[in-house]
Amino acid sequence: MKQQMVAELRQIVGSSYVMDGLEDRICYSFDATFRDFPPDVVVKPGSVGEVAAIVKLANRYQVPVTARGAATGLSGGAVPVKGGISLVLTRLNKIIEIDTANRLAIVETGVITEDLVTAVNQAGLFFPPDPASAKTSTIGGNVAECAGGPRGVKYGITRDYVLGMEVVLPDGSVVELGNKFDSEMAGPDWGMLLVGSEGTLGIVTKVYLKLIDKPNAKQTLLAIFSSLDDAAQTVSDMIASGTIPTTLEIMDNLTIRAVEEFLKVGLPVTAEAILLIEVDGSMASIGKQAEHVMRVCKKCGATAIQAASTPEDIDKLWRARKAISPACGKINPTKISEDATVPRSQIPAMVRRLREIAKKYDLKMVIFGHAGDGNLHPNILSNKHNQEEMARVEQAVEELFQAALDLGGTLSGEHGIGYMKAPFLKWETGEIGFAVGKKLKDTVDQQGILNPGKMFDL
Amino acid sequence: MKQQMVAELRQIVGSSYVMDGLEDRICYSFDATFRDFPPDVVVKPGSVGEVAAIVKLANRYQVPVTARGAATGLSGGAVPVKGGISLVLTRLNKIIEIDTANRLAIVETGVITEDLVTAVNQAGLFFPPDPASAKTSTIGGNVAECAGGPRGVKYGITRDYVLGMEVVLPDGSVVELGNKFDSEMAGPDWGMLLVGSEGTLGIVTKVYLKLIDKPNAKQTLLAIFSSLDDAAQTVSDMIASGTIPTTLEIMDNLTIRAVEEFLKVGLPVTAEAILLIEVDGSMASIGKQAEHVMRVCKKCGATAIQAASTPEDIDKLWRARKAISPACGKINPTKISEDATVPRSQIPAMVRRLREIAKKYDLKMVIFGHAGDGNLHPNILSNKHNQEEMARVEQAVEELFQAALDLGGTLSGEHGIGYMKAPFLKWETGEIGFAVGKKLKDTVDQQGILNPGKMFDL
Ligand SMILES: Cc1cc2nc3c(=O)[nH]c(=O)nc-3n(C[C@H](O)[C@H](O)[C@H](O)COP(=O)(O)OP(=O)(O)OC[C@H]3O[C@@H](n4cnc5c(N)ncnc54)[C@H](O)[C@@H]3O)c2cc1C
Ligand SMILES: Cc1cc2nc3c(=O)[nH]c(=O)nc-3n(C[C@H](O)[C@H](O)[C@H](O)COP(=O)(O)OP(=O)(O)OC[C@H]3O[C@@H](n4cnc5c(N)ncnc54)[C@H](O)[C@@H]3O)c2cc1C
Repeated sequence: MKQQMVAELRQIVGSSYVMDGLEDRICYSFDATFRDFPPDVVVKPGSVGEVAAIVKLANRYQVPVTARGAATGLSGGAVPVKGGISLVLTRLNKIIEIDTANRLAIVETGVITEDLVTAVNQAGLFFPPDPASAKTSTIGGNVAECAGGPRGVKYGITRDYVLGMEVVLPDGSVVELGNKFDSEMAGPDWGMLLVGSEGTLGIVTKVYLKLIDKPNAKQTLLAIFSSLDDAAQTVSDMIASGTIPTTLEIMDNLTIRAVEEFLKVGLPVTAEAILLIEVDGSMASIGKQAEHVMRVCKKCGATAIQAASTPEDIDKLWRARKAISPACGKINPTKISEDATVPRSQIPAMVRRLREIAKKYDLKMVIFGHAGDGNLHPNILSNKHNQEEMARVEQAVEELFQAALDLGGTLSGEHGIGYMKAPFLKWETGEIGFAVGKKLKDTVDQQGILNPGKMFDL
Repeated sequence: MKQQMVAELRQIVGSSYVMDGLEDRICYSFDATFRDFPPDVVVKPGSVGEVAAIVKLANRYQVPVTARGAATGLSGGAVPVKGGISLVLTRLNKIIEIDTANRLAIVETGVITEDLVTAVNQAGLFFPPDPASAKTSTIGGNVAECAGGPRGVKYGITRDYVLGMEVVLPDGSVVELGNKFDSEMAGPDWGMLLVGSEGTLGIVTKVYLKLIDKPNAKQTLLAIFSSLDDAAQTVSDMIASGTIPTTLEIMDNLTIRAVEEFLKVGLPVTAEAILLIEVDGSMASIGKQAEHVMRVCKKCGATAIQAASTPEDIDKLWRARKAISPACGKINPTKISEDATVPRSQIPAMVRRLREIAKKYDLKMVIFGHAGDGNLHPNILSNKHNQEEMARVEQAVEELFQAALDLGGTLSGEHGIGYMKAPFLKWETGEIGFAVGKKLKDTVDQQGILNPGKMFDL
């Protein structure tokens, strides 16, 4: 049967876009999480028609289909835990239109985030959502994960920019949802269900994205703290004080040292924490904003504040931020990356809880993240081959989920559920919420074809 | 059976909050549309527990439940077309919390829009969505209709401010959806389905709303045109030019004359159209914005531009805008109010189509609306007792829906579907979209208890 299916897939997309050799299957068996499950076959469609035909065929053969963008996901969404077809969407990489009159971009979902950001910038507009993985991640992955990013604190996250989309439903039919402009549509906007659905409700083939004005100017600041608590308090006070920076990223001492070791850009390795703060707006306003930011930082105990003024200095700071992931990878091979998120006023409390948890289970934990959004990224650096340690990691992770929920937060502010957090989803949704979510999934995907083993499907 | 049910309802909420006399039933039989259907009984619960008990009872008796806020709806959402229980939510009117640290308001859904706007303002923050009915309409109605308003062009619509909510599901269970802060939640945010669901998927009892910074200053301008086409072109050019005003409202000559007749505030009655434009932001920026606005208006043929600088003058202009509805009501008794919406670049084309349609069917049509949003409000002024005329109205309405869809728009930019537009919903969603929407409704509301005869239920 498998050979017959593979032959049919070849007819749909052409032989060069179907791979079922062991090496290829292994290459598509993992993402940025730490377990791997090879698909039976990898397929790279080149059009929505091909995607629809593949999904129809999967229904006929009753084989799972797991969508895959750039596989930078941090909860295992693109990993085909039940085998079947790995549906790689990277060939759908056309930016179809940037309509400046209506402030709209129409893109295929395999487009790489940074390519879109650049194209929009060249057209004189701005597309804010920028996960730290933007150089690699696809727009489809961002939509399916509802990706956030450093700019989320001021500009919101992916869902705030999705106006509408073209989707291949689990039965292979194609439907257009939402609008191409920034207005309500007729009826409940059930297309929004696809945002954050992690490939479980449909394959998004095209998205209509909202664009906004480009800020004229920006200023980047680095505030240095001799206490992580002070840095956390600064974040909370900053938001409450009424100045919303574009970005408000935190890094603790272990993060700083890892990055400095990796990049040598001159980060203050003795600091207990730094905040990387950017403000943007009109030329007239950014001076005032920057002053205000410095005032709050000082009030909360910053020991020094550096302003990056040259493009090179700004770039250096952002390179440091974006290097956290690979830098931590150098310390220990297995990085368990969480993104439990709390209301901003609870950041100081959450930071304290995280440090207690790391201590209790004797684990190496780096803390960084989009703190302005309440979105902390505690990363546990360990080794997946050390079973005893991994058992402690598991307990620590459960405890940190519980801490976030206790503080009124969420299991995941942006990385999604995937297979990693599926066992804990009910903690957040409650029984009723989970039951309705599952019923909706079962209604839309009656055969359970799309991305089984994730989210509501344990 | 009815008497038994009414007795049980009295036990749930207390006798003074249950009404089944004919006069009362008639008072709850209509909204701002023009047909009326009396409920069998009117119930006013005072808590989420009472709402849940009522919905459970309705399941037992298999009786429809239609939620009702202030009944200002313009598509008939709150009208109980199949009788049953009119569930009036106005007693749920507590502003529970305005949390400035996390920029969040927690409110019961019977709170009147303007009361919330004022309270938020007093707390030093800003809640932008402001339907022209804000003095009366409830937050629950706004959420259920996904209300827009004049400020939508710059600040977005209700859905952009809903973070989470408490909902009584159609089986009477209570669930909390989404978050209390501006972050993704775990799993697909299916709570967003409730936004714009018009009481067909659940009774929203509490909402968690996002608040933002208050702009420091604003400036209101009135631009006068001797051609409606020029005014429409101005809207389109303004947005494309990169200055997004806070509001960009259009009124055609018939609208201007009706309002002036009604209010006597000195509107230019010989103008073919006016644009009411507001810009806001920092003190430093609004001068520049206003200059830019004037430049675009002049380029597009404005014959005069007045700047309202005193609070009284600004207030006068806004009173004029908000008086359109009652003013038009004085001309002819029946006002068929549409809100077909198009991409902003298509506004000039849509205005032309609307005038052709009015002429073709020999109808009195006023055109006004949130033009900056692409959201035009063609209102046909007629008399529901003139059957021959109402037949022409019906044809004209169908033609204007088609025109909006042909131009890439939607049947309804904000007023919703209700019973009025239900027969046309499929034109916009297509067969597949409609089928999925209906399947989702049937999944969530298996007994068909909530607001039957609307939206997907013809
Ligand atoms: C170094 C690093 C930094 C990161 N920083 C951030 C950050 O700042 N913010 C953030 O939110 N995330 C971040 N992430 C996580 C990840 O990059 C994002 O979730 C990203 O959006 C995933 O995109 P992708 O193309 O790699 O998706 P994949 O990993 O390929 O897929 C993710 C999920 O989306 C589904 N999917 C993919 N494409 C489609 C489609 N077209 N239709 C339907 N479903 C689809 C998949 O089935 C899977 O469930 C980071 C990851 C790394 C490795
Ligand atoms: C003069 C005038 C001007 C208007 N201007 C605008 C405008 O600028 N923008 C705009 O968008 N609309 C406008 N409208 C339409 C209307 O005011 C809005 O749709 C408003 O949001 C309705 O609120 P309401 O409380 O009156 O809701 P209702 O009319 O009582 O109900 C509307 C729908 O919501 C449902 N509903 C109500 N409360 C709940 C709840 N708690 N849970 C679940 N479902 C519920 C009802 O079942 C119904 O389907 C205007 C109407 C008038 C008369």
